[in-house]
Amino acid sequence: MNGWNDLHKKLDRMFFPKSVAVVGASDLPGKWGNLILISILGWKFTGKVFPVNPNKETVFDLKSYPSLLDIPEEVDLAVFAIPARLIPDGFRDCVKKGIHAAVVISSGFKETGDIGKALEEEIIDIARNGNMVFIGPNTMGIASAHHDFEAIPTPTPVEAGGLAIISQSGNLGLQILKWVAHKNIGLNIYAGTGNEAMLNASDMMRYLGERDDVKAIAMYIEGISNGREFMEIAEQVTSKKPVIALKTGRSRTGSKAAQSHTGSMAGSYATYEAMFAQKGITRVKTPTDLLNVSAAMTHLPMPKSNRVGIMTMGGGWGIVAADECEDAGLFLPELSGDIISRLDSLLPDYWNRGNPVDLVGEGDADMYLQVIEVLARWDEIDSVIPLGIVGRSQYMEDFITCQERMDGKLYTRELKLSVLKNQLQNENRIISGIARLQKETRKPIVLVALSETGLSLSDTEHGKVMSLSSPEQAVSIISHMAQYGMYLKQRTT
Amino acid sequence: MNGWNDLHKKLDRMFFPKSVAVVGASDLPGKWGNLILISILGWKFTGKVFPVNPNKETVFDLKSYPSLLDIPEEVDLAVFAIPARLIPDGFRDCVKKGIHAAVVISSGFKETGDIGKALEEEIIDIARNGNMVFIGPNTMGIASAHHDFEAIPTPTPVEAGGLAIISQSGNLGLQILKWVAHKNIGLNIYAGTGNEAMLNASDMMRYLGERDDVKAIAMYIEGISNGREFMEIAEQVTSKKPVIALKTGRSRTGSKAAQSHTGSMAGSYATYEAMFAQKGITRVKTPTDLLNVSAAMTHLPMPKSNRVGIMTMGGGWGIVAADECEDAGLFLPELSGDIISRLDSLLPDYWNRGNPVDLVGEGDADMYLQVIEVLARWDEIDSVIPLGIVGRSQYMEDFITCQERMDGKLYTRELKLSVLKNQLQNENRIISGIARLQKETRKPIVLVALSETGLSLSDTEHGKVMSLSSPEQAVSIISHMAQYGMYLKQRTT
Repeated sequence: MNGWNDLHKKLDRMFFPKSVAVVGASDLPGKWGNLILISILGWKFTGKVFPVNPNKETVFDLKSYPSLLDIPEEVDLAVFAIPARLIPDGFRDCVKKGIHAAVVISSGFKETGDIGKALEEEIIDIARNGNMVFIGPNTMGIASAHHDFEAIPTPTPVEAGGLAIISQSGNLGLQILKWVAHKNIGLNIYAGTGNEAMLNASDMMRYLGERDDVKAIAMYIEGISNGREFMEIAEQVTSKKPVIALKTGRSRTGSKAAQSHTGSMAGSYATYEAMFAQKGITRVKTPTDLLNVSAAMTHLPMPKSNRVGIMTMGGGWGIVAADECEDAGLFLPELSGDIISRLDSLLPDYWNRGNPVDLVGEGDADMYLQVIEVLARWDEIDSVIPLGIVGRSQYMEDFITCQERMDGKLYTRELKLSVLKNQLQNENRIISGIARLQKETRKPIVLVALSETGLSLSDTEHGKVMSLSSPEQAVSIISHMAQYGMYLKQRTT
Repeated sequence: MNGWNDLHKKLDRMFFPKSVAVVGASDLPGKWGNLILISILGWKFTGKVFPVNPNKETVFDLKSYPSLLDIPEEVDLAVFAIPARLIPDGFRDCVKKGIHAAVVISSGFKETGDIGKALEEEIIDIARNGNMVFIGPNTMGIASAHHDFEAIPTPTPVEAGGLAIISQSGNLGLQILKWVAHKNIGLNIYAGTGNEAMLNASDMMRYLGERDDVKAIAMYIEGISNGREFMEIAEQVTSKKPVIALKTGRSRTGSKAAQSHTGSMAGSYATYEAMFAQKGITRVKTPTDLLNVSAAMTHLPMPKSNRVGIMTMGGGWGIVAADECEDAGLFLPELSGDIISRLDSLLPDYWNRGNPVDLVGEGDADMYLQVIEVLARWDEIDSVIPLGIVGRSQYMEDFITCQERMDGKLYTRELKLSVLKNQLQNENRIISGIARLQKETRKPIVLVALSETGLSLSDTEHGKVMSLSSPEQAVSIISHMAQYGMYLKQRTT
């Protein structure tokens, strides 16, 4: 435990540094040392930043130091963006200088063959003997949004929030981070673990598991070196917060590609599957699901069972959703007499009296919310999927275009905006009502919108409401959440 | 065959009318008869339009007629948006007036119970005895984009093109139409078949199969009344053009919901599966795939086998794609010595020499195109998926934002635009090069972009190029296309 406490402290310095040195800092556009520095400086980072580059006097108006040893102040973290063969010397400087944490962006190690492998072993030795930890090599960096700190080659303004990301792939991990930024999900920590020469995904999971502000952990995994340790940590972490993992290399080709990518052995996928299920890790199969399920688990209440209620504006969507539910292991209970009579008072008399509840294109915001409320407060279900009641502004815009053509004259900008604003206000009222019901009933209510934007999260005074653009995405989210909800329930009984 | 010739002619009048009467036309916002009329008039329809409404002198400046019989000119098509109980009289007027084609938007028929069923039988009788055909009831209408004719309750400006849609669900069908409109796919004919009292999906498939300007047919199917006829027609049509079908009701709940929706029996899903496979119908499971696969089959060359080459900017994406390929029955051949030596001359010497070809973040537009060309011209594969080389403008915008924050001053609008324009020009060059290769090699090249827009189609002088936002979508498209490609090959040998 002492070992872990010490490591935890070093990780705190890595992710919450007061001062950072960038070795290989550059003002030449496109260079990694340039991109990383823009990422750090372009953030709202309040700590000190020291460029290290022997060929420069200054980089971006900051004094540049010939080496780490020349920096006159304490340094919490060194970020390396120099050729692989120069890293050992850089590490030796870290040790001399008393820098205990490093991020090695540089590639050219284990993943390139024997020479790179020897180099990787050399830097591990230096770090071990020098009381230093490092993440990488061959990583696209780290970010810590609550600390306004980001050191990645794709500078991205992202809001701080509850979702942490661990990724063994830089490209894939940073794309997830982009989505988190642009879809209003809120980032906690991003840790690109790269080759995992020293720190690995298990360490990161353990660290993030102990941080209360981390609400959910999304992982992209190609291979795990120490399965037993991973399982032990997973068991601890998933009792406190959801861990969502995309484990690739399930195919022969994918597994081979993983090996040449970060030099990891993918291992038997079936073993991972069993391990994940046993330890409550939520397993997803696509990057889209990794994002969608992680976002939902960060922001929505967890359902306690796999029983779902569906409300649909049109029959087709309801049937598609029902099919998808059955494929995904979700169950649609038949409506009870009590629920039917409650809905009878809200719906036109020819309504289908089934689940999915088909509105046949009828109703308004109040009616939608009343029907959703009846479903959400019904004991027999633990989540609700309303289809087709929001996301209609594109419909309205098209309508205006056709009306303009018909009238032979354009709407004024004011009229157009007022029509759209009206539509939007109406939808906001629905979304706000759903947020309230979601909060009161502690059941997730996931919308399927008539739009083309994929996942979207709306902020309301009662929390976030999630909508997707196609039923299969909503169903996939609920099914993964239900599985975790049932895992938690079974674990505590 | 005479029967069919006669029907074909009537369908021509239905989808390419010179004059249309709208029974129930209204200028009251929100009424179906209002929406349908706006859809017709808001189009560029050049035919004559006759509102029928006994309570109005005019509707939208057009003279309104008390009944169909009062219209002084010939009418090719009557569109009904009046209560169900009034339809029989309307049909009798059609017969008297010599109108041979009708669209019945109105619901309240078979799907509502015994009274509605009797009403539906009554109008079938009137039509049969009166030498008249109709589509519906309980449909959201039809559209015929090359004729600038659209009669649906969600007026939508859509470009004319090669994709036809047949849908037994109005909501779902019109959402597909919306996507076709907003994603630049190009619509041919939309036929919402509703309850299929007289005309059914088989008739529509046969009709669209005979029209040369229809390049592909997308179908949403809940149930088929005459399986044998459907199979015979499908066999004919799929020999000429792809038919992509989303058949729902595969679950118990979905099947039950389908029955109450359009009153159709879903039938055994396994039977449909077998039937679709035998007759070369491309079966998809989600609305997203219905759209994506249909768009691809409308615009891209069909692969002749299931062998795929992947090029990726980063390892993770390649591995995800490789896994998805194997799940979807696609095969990634190992690179031959010849291909490896060709790529050796293009790639940095540590490249992985495997399929997926991993660029490890290196390269420029020229290099990407050269690698794609080597893959596309290789005999051992029939489609190419390049990952991560386009869709980077969001990355560039984020970069600018961070640089602005760093510099403490905003970029000028001109500078911003010039940076983004440069990025875009670069990507357009890649896209145009891919279009050329796609055309020359007759192999589909489907991009996975770093963006959040889902399906997107780019126009170039060499045809359209398709990109998706996540690998599983591209893989699903290619696997469905390969299956149809192999079906065609096996059929002709």
